[in-house]
Order: sequence, then structure tokens, then C-alpha cells
Amino acid sequence: MSEQSPLELADGDPFGPHNLPYGVFTTADEPERRRLGVRIGNHVLDAGAAARALGSPYAGLLDQPHLGPLLAAGRSTWRDVRRALTAWVTVPAHRTAVEPLLHRLGDVTLHLPYEVADYVDFYASEHHATNVGRIFRPDGEPLTPNWKHLPIGYHGRAGTLVVSGTDVVRPSGQRKAPSDPAPVFGPSVKLDIEAEVGFLVGTPSELGSPVPLERFEDHVFGLFLLNDWSARDLQAWEYVPLGPFLGKSFATSVSPWVTPLEALEDARTAPPARDVPLLPYLDDSAEERPGGFDLHMAVAINGTVVAEPPFASMYWTAAQQLAHMTVNGASLRTGDVYASGTVSGPEKDQRGSLLELTWNGRDALELAEGKRTFLEDGDVVTMTAWAPGPDGVRVGLGEVTGRIVPSAR
Amino acid sequence: MSEQSPLELADGDPFGPHNLPYGVFTTADEPERRRLGVRIGNHVLDAGAAARALGSPYAGLLDQPHLGPLLAAGRSTWRDVRRALTAWVTVPAHRTAVEPLLHRLGDVTLHLPYEVADYVDFYASEHHATNVGRIFRPDGEPLTPNWKHLPIGYHGRAGTLVVSGTDVVRPSGQRKAPSDPAPVFGPSVKLDIEAEVGFLVGTPSELGSPVPLERFEDHVFGLFLLNDWSARDLQAWEYVPLGPFLGKSFATSVSPWVTPLEALEDARTAPPARDVPLLPYLDDSAEERPGGFDLHMAVAINGTVVAEPPFASMYWTAAQQLAHMTVNGASLRTGDVYASGTVSGPEKDQRGSLLELTWNGRDALELAEGKRTFLEDGDVVTMTAWAPGPDGVRVGLGEVTGRIVPSAR
Repeated sequence: MSEQSPLELADGDPFGPHNLPYGVFTTADEPERRRLGVRIGNHVLDAGAAARALGSPYAGLLDQPHLGPLLAAGRSTWRDVRRALTAWVTVPAHRTAVEPLLHRLGDVTLHLPYEVADYVDFYASEHHATNVGRIFRPDGEPLTPNWKHLPIGYHGRAGTLVVSGTDVVRPSGQRKAPSDPAPVFGPSVKLDIEAEVGFLVGTPSELGSPVPLERFEDHVFGLFLLNDWSARDLQAWEYVPLGPFLGKSFATSVSPWVTPLEALEDARTAPPARDVPLLPYLDDSAEERPGGFDLHMAVAINGTVVAEPPFASMYWTAAQQLAHMTVNGASLRTGDVYASGTVSGPEKDQRGSLLELTWNGRDALELAEGKRTFLEDGDVVTMTAWAPGPDGVRVGLGEVTGRIVPSAR
Repeated sequence: MSEQSPLELADGDPFGPHNLPYGVFTTADEPERRRLGVRIGNHVLDAGAAARALGSPYAGLLDQPHLGPLLAAGRSTWRDVRRALTAWVTVPAHRTAVEPLLHRLGDVTLHLPYEVADYVDFYASEHHATNVGRIFRPDGEPLTPNWKHLPIGYHGRAGTLVVSGTDVVRPSGQRKAPSDPAPVFGPSVKLDIEAEVGFLVGTPSELGSPVPLERFEDHVFGLFLLNDWSARDLQAWEYVPLGPFLGKSFATSVSPWVTPLEALEDARTAPPARDVPLLPYLDDSAEERPGGFDLHMAVAINGTVVAEPPFASMYWTAAQQLAHMTVNGASLRTGDVYASGTVSGPEKDQRGSLLELTWNGRDALELAEGKRTFLEDGDVVTMTAWAPGPDGVRVGLGEVTGRIVPSAR
């Protein structure tokens, strides 16, 4: 009886050789030895071991505990390494060498695959920003006057990006309802999610040198799903005038799998039409390739899908965000992460936060476990996504999941 | 003729053995070899070389290219290392070994002495926040309702902290005057300073574990001067609703010298009386030691002192900022930096920003070179400070300086 090779995937497997996302794993017998892995089907290829076994010139970049050296190597190397990896998992002659280096996904532990430098979060969905504006400023214009002129963003806490699967402790902090005479302290009662896409910077840039739109792919290595957990009650009381702080900084969960931009060639799509003229450094109307990505996201709470946000509906593209973030001369470092902001589409069931889905708690969601306005302890939130790939095959994005555990206080 | 020893300092030298700030330097003959140094008078002691020469058990922590290992070693080690350093520069028997390891300050290049993890900027001066409120919201309450209940802060860009002496390129970006029909792009026309004090975290903390007030000195290693360069025109257009971003992220200059908290025992002072009751995690009224630091700061433009901000007037203390920053469970990493926010005292000549000193450009300052509302290309801004030390001797803080160079665009 011959077992089927893990490299013989079912037709249309979203983690086929057209995808090959990168991650970092450990095995049960060597729990301290982090290694770069590449996902193929439901297995992880030990990329460094494969490079060594096959005598690849990229062994030095792949035989590493995190993605840093590969990220820093630059775009042409990313392309060459991807070409090599593709050969290793597809050329039959390599099978004998490669198969012993495959680990079942269920047998490994996945880790944060990069050292985060700076973390920036944007606010790039018009639907999301409009919904938030309507909820919090019902009598005013939903969008602030700057919104369509620049991609609004802010820096978040890089040190509390955690890998998918990490429990999220319900944060405590100050909140104050308008009717309260003074703020009260306690565990957040409005714990929320934000379904986002994160972008990982590989190639650094010099201080004082803006990165123009057309150099996006020279600097950004890949993307991944991100859940920007948000304590709405803490956020509401603290955020005027300097923006979100403790309402966000307790945890931001990221997928363990980074999908290279090269795997998403067929997912490029034009962003929505822009209503107002853009300054030249943001004007992407003459760009060779469309700046959007057609990612189909899904958000589930305890297994029930509550939203399917369409990333293609984002007003600002990742290239525009990068151009904006550096136009003042701010430098990029290898490991910088920036996130899209909550992805919400035009439809009610396309909204990427409970704030919007329940209209700030007014309209509870019906789950199998009962009604939900915001998250309860024990709730598990899982985000997944796919994108169109070559020949109608889907490109699967690695999921990001997290469980809420009670506040320690 | 016997030359005087560099270790024989004039009485009252603010960089005497009571001070001993840490830095990182290179010499002209080994420009790539970064080494830990300790300042004594106008010299830098090669701390690693001294540790090796004297057979110190701390050679492993001191013979390093940056402060990281020492920072991570924790408070009791910080104290022991400081005791050893004090002996090396004061005990006559060590003089023969130590003197050859002293470099004249003018002969070395100073570098950023730590790897910055996360960077947070607070807004802790009541006088500054009140002035800003009066300038931008003349018809409203100057302070937002949350201001006296929590130390307002936000995350800044860790990757653009630069060491004193680094030129600051005037940033470009979007600005829009209320009368402009649309934003315009160009070099900032309201480039400003913010005189601040930065705090450097040594001991990390676990995700989910707040750091209470009384553990401030277990986690924070020392402090230093910081200039939070600010493009007011960029900031004004971008900052609603998510806070400052490009108006700040182009550069933040820090002193190359980190003064250990232990050198500032005599500078501890009570913060101003608090007007509103504080929640228990911020209430420092029962703390053993006062939370303020009596730092006397001075800001000079092209050599003319334009302000003398008193750090003792800060409403929120560094211990309160640390307790607040972590109360939601956010973890600390070695190398986290957090800054006080602009230091402004009650008097006009104690204001730590040009925004306040010129009342947003209304009242120009008279310098030798002519009038100034905001900074012009070529201007050099230098911040210095001292604190009371033992027996009436001053503790000098290392200066932070930077020159404005024209926008590259």
C-alpha cells in the first residue's frame, strides 16, 4: 500500500504551489528551534532544510528562525527564492529529498514569523469610516474633511502584535458614559474586532527619502490577515485629541502565514472611483497596475460567519498608504507592518467590526450560543480569506484566530 | 610638567562621579566599532574595556555595542554596575588602569545608545495642553474632559528616533488653511520643536500584567532629553480623528546620554496638586517617593535661550504614565521609550514649543538673526537641562541638538 504524497494535492487546493505562504514553526521534539516554513496543502516544508538538502544558494536566507534576512534581501531575491521553492514542491525529481522535510500542519506550532519594527494602522474603508461617523456623530458629516484627501493612519503598539491562536485577555481600563459623573475602571464591556489586512515591509528606505507609489512592490513583501482587537469603551473616552491608545494596544492578532505579493498577481483590482482629485504623490490613475487586491474575507464568531468583508472595496490602496506614510521623509525598516484599517463593504453583512454589525450594540447578532453585541469571554473569533489565483484556482490566506479570556483583574 | 588627570574634575562639574550617564561611541580609528561609554567630565570612559582591564564580572554587560544587555539585566544589576563604575572613576588605585581608556568627548562620535522598541509620546503638561487648547479652540474649554483623569498619550514612530546632532530635513506634506479650497502639498511652513524628557524601559513585562505605580523604578532605567520635532501645518490637517502621524514621524531627536534614575535621587519632587480624584491605579498620593523630577530645562535657537521649561511642573508623572500605558495588559519590552510630552511651565518664557512661545505665529521671537515664528532652514535648536544632585552639585543632562536642512523636494 503506497500512501499518497503530501505534494499530490487535490485540484484547486488553495494552498497549492501557486500560493506558498511563509511562516515560522517549531516541532514538538525541538520546541525551541524556530524554522522558516512554507505551506503546501496541509503541510509545512522546512525551507532551510530543503535548501540545504538541495544545495540551494538560498540556504543562508532560509535556514533562519524568522523572515528577517529574506525580507531584507529585496525584491529580486524574493522572486528567485519563490521560483526555487516552486520547483522544490513541483518537480518530481526533488520529491525524494523534499518529502521527508514536510511536517503535517497539525504537528507543528506556528509563531510570529517576523520581528515587528513599526506598526501603523490605517482607516481606509469608506464604508467603515462612514458607519463609524454615523454612529458617533449622527448630526455631523460622517467623514472628516481630510478623509478623501489622505489615507488617515496612526502608529500602534508593535510589541503587542501576537500570532494567531494567542489568547486575548479582556483589557481593563477607564470608560465613561456621557451620563457618568466620572470615569469608572474595569474590564472592557465593549470588546470588538476589526477585520483587516496587514502589509509586511521587506526593503528599508532612507530617512528623508519618500517611497513613491510605483515602488510599492520593491518594498512590500507580502500581506496577511490581521485582527485589530478594540475596546470601544476605553477608546471612546481616551481618543480625543491624540487618537487610539489603550483601546487598541493590548493585542493585535496576525496570521502566521505571510502571502507573497507575487502569489496575488491575479487578485490585483482597481480601487473604487475617487470622488476628489488627489495630490500627485497619491494619484494612482496612471499606475501600470491596479492598486487594489480582490480578497474575499470572512469573519466567524464561534464558527458562525457574521460578515464577509470585500477587500476590493477599500478606498485607499496599500501603495497609497506606503507613499503617504513616507512622504514626509519617514524611513521604513525591515519588519515594518502596516494595516489597512477595518474592511467593510457597502452591505450590512460585509462590515468588519461588531461596532458596525450591531450598530454600537443596538442590533444584537444571533449566534448559536445566544445574542451578541460585543464579545463575551470564551468567544473565539476567526478570520479567513481567499483571492483569485491563476486558472480560476483560489489563493488561500492563512487564518487569524483568537479566544477571549477573562480579565485578570 | 605633569598634565592634570581627566578624572580630576573642577568642583561642581555637572558630569562628576555623581552623574555617570551612559552612551555609545565610536572613535575615528575604529568608526565601525560601537562601544558603551560612561561620561565623566568632558571624557568618555570605554566601559567595556575598563571592565575587562579591572577583571569586572560586568564585562559581559558592558563590552557591548549598545545598552540592550545592561537594560535587560534589571534594577539590582543596574545598581551594582553603577557602584562599580563609580569606584573605577574615583578610587585612586584604579587610575592607572582607567586613564588610558578615557577618550576626549570632542574626539568621539556618539550614537543612539539603545535599540528602540516601541515609542510612546504623552501630553502631560497642563500648561502646554491649556495653551494648545486656547490656541486651537479659543471658544471651548482648553482641556478635553479626559485630560485630568488619565495621562493622554499615543504611539509614535520608533524607527525615526535619531541621535542628537542628526540633521533634520524639513518634511513635506499636505496642509490646508481653513480658507484653502483643497489641501496643498509642500515643505512644512510651521516647523516646530517640543522640549520633552524621554524615559527608557529596561525590564520587560508580560502581556496581560499591568505595571503598578510602585514598580516604576524596577522597569525604567533612566531618562534623557528629547526634541519631538513637529510640523504644525501637517499635524493640523491630519490629526482628526486618529491623532498625530506625519506631523511627527519624520524625526524625533534624543540625547546620546541616558542618565540613570539613580543619579536623580536628589531631584525627586512632588508633582503639582491634583484637582480631581484619581482612579486607584493612578493615585500616587500614598507613594513612598514623590513622582516628579526637578529638571531645569533650557531651549536655545542658534545659541539664544528662548525658553526655560520646568519639568517639575508636569501634571502627570513618569510612573503614572507607565502604570497607565500597561493597565490594559500591554507588555513592555527592553528599549521601549516613552516621552513626557512638551514641557511648559506657567510663565511665558517657560513654554517648550514655538507654537506656544509665538502663540501660533502671532508674536514673533527676536533672535540675533532676526524674527522667528517657526523654524527656518539652517536654524539649530539645542536643549539642555540640569537637576539638583547631592550636596548642592548639579546633575547635567546630555544635550539634544539638531539643525534644520531644506526639504529635498
